[in-house]
Amino acid sequence: MNQTDPKQIEVYFDKLWPICRSITGNGLRESFKILSEIIPLKLTEVPTGKAVFDWVIPKEWNIHDAYIVLPDGKKICDFKVNNLHVVNYSTPVNQEMNYEELVKYLYTLERLPDAIPYITSYYKEKWGFCLSKNEFDKLPKNGTYKVVIDSELKLGSLTYGECLLKGDTTDEILFSSYLCHPSMANNELSGPLVLSFLYKLLASQPNRKYSYRFVIVPETIGTIAFLADNKDDVIQNVKAGYVLTCCGTDKPFVFKKSRRENSLADEMALHVLKHSGKKYSVLDFDPLGSDERQYCSPGFNLPVASLMRSKYHDYPEYHTSLDNKALISFEAMAETVQMYFSIVKAMEVNGYYKNTIQFCEPNMGKRGLYEDLSGALTMPQQLSTRMRLINYMDGKTSLLEFCERYQLNIADLRNEIDLLIQKGVLAN
Amino acid sequence: MNQTDPKQIEVYFDKLWPICRSITGNGLRESFKILSEIIPLKLTEVPTGKAVFDWVIPKEWNIHDAYIVLPDGKKICDFKVNNLHVVNYSTPVNQEMNYEELVKYLYTLERLPDAIPYITSYYKEKWGFCLSKNEFDKLPKNGTYKVVIDSELKLGSLTYGECLLKGDTTDEILFSSYLCHPSMANNELSGPLVLSFLYKLLASQPNRKYSYRFVIVPETIGTIAFLADNKDDVIQNVKAGYVLTCCGTDKPFVFKKSRRENSLADEMALHVLKHSGKKYSVLDFDPLGSDERQYCSPGFNLPVASLMRSKYHDYPEYHTSLDNKALISFEAMAETVQMYFSIVKAMEVNGYYKNTIQFCEPNMGKRGLYEDLSGALTMPQQLSTRMRLINYMDGKTSLLEFCERYQLNIADLRNEIDLLIQKGVLAN
Amino acid sequence: MNQTDPKQIEVYFDKLWPICRSITGNGLRESFKILSEIIPLKLTEVPTGKAVFDWVIPKEWNIHDAYIVLPDGKKICDFKVNNLHVVNYSTPVNQEMNYEELVKYLYTLERLPDAIPYITSYYKEKWGFCLSKNEFDKLPKNGTYKVVIDSELKLGSLTYGECLLKGDTTDEILFSSYLCHPSMANNELSGPLVLSFLYKLLASQPNRKYSYRFVIVPETIGTIAFLADNKDDVIQNVKAGYVLTCCGTDKPFVFKKSRRENSLADEMALHVLKHSGKKYSVLDFDPLGSDERQYCSPGFNLPVASLMRSKYHDYPEYHTSLDNKALISFEAMAETVQMYFSIVKAMEVNGYYKNTIQFCEPNMGKRGLYEDLSGALTMPQQLSTRMRLINYMDGKTSLLEFCERYQLNIADLRNEIDLLIQKGVLAN
Repeated sequence: MNQTDPKQIEVYFDKLWPICRSITGNGLRESFKILSEIIPLKLTEVPTGKAVFDWVIPKEWNIHDAYIVLPDGKKICDFKVNNLHVVNYSTPVNQEMNYEELVKYLYTLERLPDAIPYITSYYKEKWGFCLSKNEFDKLPKNGTYKVVIDSELKLGSLTYGECLLKGDTTDEILFSSYLCHPSMANNELSGPLVLSFLYKLLASQPNRKYSYRFVIVPETIGTIAFLADNKDDVIQNVKAGYVLTCCGTDKPFVFKKSRRENSLADEMALHVLKHSGKKYSVLDFDPLGSDERQYCSPGFNLPVASLMRSKYHDYPEYHTSLDNKALISFEAMAETVQMYFSIVKAMEVNGYYKNTIQFCEPNMGKRGLYEDLSGALTMPQQLSTRMRLINYMDGKTSLLEFCERYQLNIADLRNEIDLLIQKGVLAN
Repeated sequence: MNQTDPKQIEVYFDKLWPICRSITGNGLRESFKILSEIIPLKLTEVPTGKAVFDWVIPKEWNIHDAYIVLPDGKKICDFKVNNLHVVNYSTPVNQEMNYEELVKYLYTLERLPDAIPYITSYYKEKWGFCLSKNEFDKLPKNGTYKVVIDSELKLGSLTYGECLLKGDTTDEILFSSYLCHPSMANNELSGPLVLSFLYKLLASQPNRKYSYRFVIVPETIGTIAFLADNKDDVIQNVKAGYVLTCCGTDKPFVFKKSRRENSLADEMALHVLKHSGKKYSVLDFDPLGSDERQYCSPGFNLPVASLMRSKYHDYPEYHTSLDNKALISFEAMAETVQMYFSIVKAMEVNGYYKNTIQFCEPNMGKRGLYEDLSGALTMPQQLSTRMRLINYMDGKTSLLEFCERYQLNIADLRNEIDLLIQKGVLAN
Repeated sequence: MNQTDPKQIEVYFDKLWPICRSITGNGLRESFKILSEIIPLKLTEVPTGKAVFDWVIPKEWNIHDAYIVLPDGKKICDFKVNNLHVVNYSTPVNQEMNYEELVKYLYTLERLPDAIPYITSYYKEKWGFCLSKNEFDKLPKNGTYKVVIDSELKLGSLTYGECLLKGDTTDEILFSSYLCHPSMANNELSGPLVLSFLYKLLASQPNRKYSYRFVIVPETIGTIAFLADNKDDVIQNVKAGYVLTCCGTDKPFVFKKSRRENSLADEMALHVLKHSGKKYSVLDFDPLGSDERQYCSPGFNLPVASLMRSKYHDYPEYHTSLDNKALISFEAMAETVQMYFSIVKAMEVNGYYKNTIQFCEPNMGKRGLYEDLSGALTMPQQLSTRMRLINYMDGKTSLLEFCERYQLNIADLRNEIDLLIQKGVLAN
C-alpha cells in the first residue's frame, strides 16, 4: 500500500469532529479509541498531581452540558450545539445573574464577528462562555440570565497514546501530534489524522531501517508528561522528528525548522520538498509554536521540525469555530500524508555508505558495472552518477549531501545503491 | 548622571589646547594634571633607557622657545605662536645660515598651502621647522637667517596615566587614548577628552559587572611601555577594549574592527551602532593606525577596536594646523561619549544566562509570568520575547546573539532579564 | 631560463605525433624515449598480471598493421594512414566476411561525419575499426570484405615514467600527465609536452624549497600502478599537485578543483590565475575526468587539481581524428607552461612566516626599515605592506591568506619577505 484514500480520512474526521476534547477527560479517551482503529496506540494514564519536570498534571475535567438562558427563556451558547461555547476547563456553575455580571464571563472576537473564539483556562480555575460578536451584541441589557455549566474537575488522569513501529535499528524517527482541541478541523484534527494514516502506510512496508515512534498527546502538558516518562530513550534514539499540526488545508506547505536548524529532520524535509514540485515556504525555528517548544527545549534540543500547511496564528480562522470542515481538504490531507511518507522513504535510503575500495577507483568493468568500450562515446547519466557515488561514498559524506551536491533526488538512487551494495562496491 | 555637558568638554579643551605636548616632557605632564581634574589618573614615570619589548624609552624632550629670524630681522615660525612650527623632538640649535642651507630643515605641505604640517622625529636626532607653503614661498633667497630652537634632550622619563574603575568581576573593558600631540583638536585632544568624560559618566553609575580600565599614554611608545608593565594582567583580564582617537567631529561614526574581527568588542559596538539610528561605516582591521597596532600585535591580539568619526589619514586637515577648534564640535564629542556609554550599558546587560529548567519549558503561569487564558487571543510582544528568552538562554547563547537573531535592541531587555532572574527562571 | 620556446615544443610534438601509443607496448616506450630528451625519466616496467589495488595489469599490446580490403580490392581504414582506424587493443584478425557481419565491428560518429572516432577496449578482448560516417555510408553492401589486424596481446609489461627534482624539503608538488593516446593533439600530447617543458624550466632554477615530482603514465591503469608502487610516499609528501591534460589550445584556462576544493593546490592556482590577467573559468571537483579520479579517490584524497584549456568532453573534436595539429597552438602551450611555472614560483614564496617580535610592533626604525620622520607625510605603499606583514605573519596566517586579504599578488612579495628575514624581523 503506497497511497492514502482521502475518503477514509473523512470517515474518521466525521467520527472525531463532534467530541468535546480537552487536555484530560473522557472526550480525549473516546477520541483515542476511534484513532486506535487506524493505529494501535498504547495508552498511558498519568495521574492528577504527578510532577512532570516543572509542571504538575492537573485535575481531570469532564463536561456534560452548558448553556445560558436569556431573560426571555431562550437558550444560547448551547454546548450541545457547539462545544467551543464553553471556556475549556470551566468550573461548574449554575446561577442567575444580570447582564453587567454576566459579561465578565463572556468572550468574543472583534476581528471575526461571526466566529466563536476558542478559549481555555487550564491552570487557573475559571468559567466562561464564548460567542460570536454578533450574538453578543444582541444580548438584552435588562432581566435575569441563567448560566449553567455541568462540568466537574476531579482527581483523575491525563491520557496519552504512543505506538512504536520497530525497524532494523533502534534509531528512531518521531512523529508527534496532539488531540486536545475540541471541534476544530485544521487545528487540530488534521495532525492526529495525518499521523494515523502515515502510520498505516508505514506499517504496510515490507522492511524499515529506522524504528518509527508515533505519539499523540494533549498539547504541552501531554508532551511534557510523555517526555518525563521517556526522557533518556528519546534523547538517545530520536534521530529526526516532526510535530504534525495544522496540515489539513490545500494551502502550500510551510516548513518550520528544528532548533538545530541543520539537523537530519531539517535537511531531509527540505530536500524532499525541493524535489516534490509542490509550493512551500521555510521558517526558522522559533520557540513560540506547538509541541516543538518541548522537544526543542534546551535540555532536549531534539532534531524535531514541523511540516504544516495553514500554520497556527497565520490563518484568520485559527482557534475559532470557523476552523471547520469547510476550511480543510481531505485530498490535501492525503497529500500531506504522502509528503511525510516521501520524507520517510528518503530517510530509509539515506546513509553513510562506504566504498569498499578506497584507494584508486574500483575496477567497475570486471563487475559488469561499466561499458566495455571507451572513447568518443558519451557516458550515460546513470554511469556518471555511479562513478560519482563510488568516489563520494567514503563513510563521511551522507547520500543526502551527495544528492544536494549533484542536484539529484535521493529517492531516485534507491536501486543504484542496492546494486552497488549487491556488487560489493559499497557497504552499509 | 547620564549625560555629558558639551560646555564642560570645551572648558577642558581650551585648557589643554595651547600646551606643547610630545611623547615625553613637561607639556605631557601638565596635560595629565589638567585631565586629572576629571579622571583620577595614576601616573607612571618610565625612565629613559628602559627596554620595553623591542623598544627603548627615549630621552626626555623639553622646549622653551623656537623661531627663525629673517635677514630683515622679522621673526617667523614662532613656537610661541604655534607649536607645530617646530619639528617635534628637535635638538637645540642656535645658528646663522643662508637660504640654501636653511631649506634642508624646512617642511611644508603642497596640497594644503595654508597649513603648517605636523612633523616629528623621535628616534633620529634632528631639528627642523614646519611652515605653510605660502609662507615658505615668500622667504627671501639672499641674506643671513638665524635659527633658534631652545630645547633639550636629556635623561628623564616618559609619563603615562591609568585609572581602574573596579566592578563586580575582574573582567575588564579597556579604553585607551593618547596625549602626545601638540596643538591639534580632532587628532588628538578629542580622544583623551572623550575618555575622561566617559570615565565620569561610568563612575557615577551605582554598580558595574565589569571593571573598566582607562589608559592615557603617549602614542606607540607609551602604549608599549604600558603593555610592558601590564602584560599578563591585560592578557588575562581584557574582554573588550577600544582605542579612542579622532572622535571629535560631527561626521558619521567610523568603526574599525579589532584584529579578531568578531570579538565582543566588535559585535557589541556594531549592535549598538545599528540600533542607535546614527550613520556609521565599518572598516576591517588593518595594522596601520593608532595604538591598536600594539594591542592587536600578534602576541597580544586583544579584542581592541576603535570607534572614530573623522578617521586619521581620512580628513584633509589631519596632522596639520587646520585640525583646530573650528574643525570639531563639542556637541558631537558629547555624542561620542554617549555612544561609548551605550556600548558599556549593553556590555553590562549582556551575558550567558542559563534557564534553570532545561527540560521542557518552565511553567510560567505558576510564577505569574504568563496569561491565565489561552486560545484565540494574540500573544503580546513582551510575552513572545519572554518565551524566546526562556528557550535560548541555555548558557551557550549570549544575550547579544539572541538579540541579533530577533532584531532586538539589547538595551531594551534589561528589565525583562532582571525579572526572569528574580523569578528564578534564569540564572546568571 | 625563464621562458619556453614554442618552436621547441613543436619539434617534439612532430616526433611524437605519428606513433601509435596505447596503455602498454612499444609505441608507449618509444614515446617515453623521445620525452627523455627533455626530462630525465626513470622508467618502470610493471608486469602483466600484477595486482595493483583493485586492478590487474593487462596483457601487453602491440600492433604492426591493420586495414580493410573492399570487395573491389581497395584498401580502407589503413592503420598506417591513421592509427585511430583500429579500435585500440584490438585482438588480431585476418578473415573474410560480408557487409552484414563486418558492420558489427565498425564504429562511426553521427555528430561529426568527417571524423574518425577514437575507441578502445582494454579490458574486454575485441577487435574493431573506426571510420568516418561519410566513409561508412559509401561501403558497398555486396561482395566479400577482408579484414586484417596484425596485432598481438601477450604477457609483457606496462611502462611508466617519473622524475623527482629534489628541493630543500621532502614536501612535494606533483605534476602528472599521461601518454597512452595515439595520434591526437590536445588530448593528449599537450599534457606530457607541457609537463616536460615545465620540468626544464624548473630544473634551471638555482634553488627550490619544494621537491617536484613529475609523473607520466598511461591513463588510469598507469596511475593506479604508480600509486600502488608509491602509496605511502605520495600520501606523506604531496602537498599540492596537478593533472596536466587538455592544455594545448589557445582557449581560456579551465581550472578544475581538487576533491578537497580549498587545498593549497586550489587556492594557489586561483590566486595566480586571478592576478594573471588571463581569462579563466573554475569548475568544482567531479570524480569524472582524468587521473584526478585516482589521486582524489577517497583513500588518497590528495590535493590534486587540474589546469586545462579545452577540457575533455567540452570541445567537439575530443576523442576524434579532428583533435590534431590544426586544433592546437604551440604559443598557447608555452603560455600554459608559464602559468604552471607562475604557480610554482608562488608556492615557493608562500609560507607561514613568523614575526620574531610578537608583543607590540618591532622597532622598525632602528633596523632601517622605517622612515625617520613621521606625521603629515603619506606612508608609501611598500611601507604599509611591510607593517601589515609584520602584524599578520604570526605563524598561523599563510602569506597567501595575507595576499588574499589585501589583494596583493604573492609573486610581488618575494623581495620584501627576503628583506624582512634578512633583517631578523621575520623567521621561516
